[in-house]
Amino acid sequence: MNGYFITFEGGEGAGKTSVLNHLYDQLQQRGYDVLRTREPGGIEIAEQIREIILNPAHTDMEERTEALLYAAARRQHLVEKVLPALNQGKVVLCDRFIDSSLAYQGYARGLGIDEVFAINQFAIKGHMPDLTLFFDIEPKKGLARIASNKDRERNRLDREELHFHERVYEGYKVLLEKFPSRMHVINADQALEDVEKDVYQLIISYLH
Amino acid sequence: MNGYFITFEGGEGAGKTSVLNHLYDQLQQRGYDVLRTREPGGIEIAEQIREIILNPAHTDMEERTEALLYAAARRQHLVEKVLPALNQGKVVLCDRFIDSSLAYQGYARGLGIDEVFAINQFAIKGHMPDLTLFFDIEPKKGLARIASNKDRERNRLDREELHFHERVYEGYKVLLEKFPSRMHVINADQALEDVEKDVYQLIISYLH
Repeated sequence: MNGYFITFEGGEGAGKTSVLNHLYDQLQQRGYDVLRTREPGGIEIAEQIREIILNPAHTDMEERTEALLYAAARRQHLVEKVLPALNQGKVVLCDRFIDSSLAYQGYARGLGIDEVFAINQFAIKGHMPDLTLFFDIEPKKGLARIASNKDRERNRLDREELHFHERVYEGYKVLLEKFPSRMHVINADQALEDVEKDVYQLIISYLH
Repeated sequence: MNGYFITFEGGEGAGKTSVLNHLYDQLQQRGYDVLRTREPGGIEIAEQIREIILNPAHTDMEERTEALLYAAARRQHLVEKVLPALNQGKVVLCDRFIDSSLAYQGYARGLGIDEVFAINQFAIKGHMPDLTLFFDIEPKKGLARIASNKDRERNRLDREELHFHERVYEGYKVLLEKFPSRMHVINADQALEDVEKDVYQLIISYLH
């Protein structure tokens, strides 16, 4: 593996997807070979797993079933898309990865970070991200951003109560302590241009 | 949980499904409240997961993805069907359960029994079977039985080579050593009536 595996993490409305897209353009302009992706990433098996998870008719889906399905989709996306790109020396920018499962299912839903980490270790088999950016913004502010953006696709999580998002945020804070060398905090409570600048500087210095 | 959770395990053509059906009738005649099931067991979410696993177009499904999907389907079937029956005091007869994953994926496919056990522990959360019957017959003989039965549905595993089935058999032998108090060996290399008799006697003495 001679590429770089960089993941973007944070709560809803933290701006990570916009910043990721901007960074993708900037790195390409600088001549980097970049793959931009997110799970399930167009991988057919992973897309079908995702459909089962997000099917609104599945209100009786148990939380552990859901966590195992996320891990399964993650495995297939990793093997079919991420690892081949890393083997080709690409910079892989991935919108959410293992830490989302740890923060959302492990911490906020109460399954336990260590337990969810265990099934994800089975799924990723040592292929942890080289670098993870945590977009740090208070949940209340992030959710307010989403509410003001009518174009944004609303998903099931957007409708959960603020309390849940505060739990997710706490979960990420636990992860920052657990993975201090891999995870970097990005101040996402600034104008988008400033967040983009911070991220670009961090990534460029990391890639050199 | 005041019911009994009994699972049936073994290679292809070991006769466990026929014997399970016969035992089901016998126990009902004796007045027991019995649930007969197998994964995915008509549970909608589990059926949909199973469809993804068995879709012949998914030749590129990675082995760890498959193992996680089996664990996810197991979780949902357990929660929706098995646990409620056990709570009602029923005798639950389940055709294959965790040991199939350990023998097939963990041992025969080489993912490792302990690793596959870990994701299944997440899925079953302590709800191991009370009793497991291992139908012991040499793979060559079991496969010959299937080959002579034209009515039996052929699945993907039936077409695998003998070598794979011998690996599965070895895997079960490892499990017998790992779980000596839970797993009981049934001599499946006899006439069906004799296997049925052995199983019935074992189960009746267990339930008393």
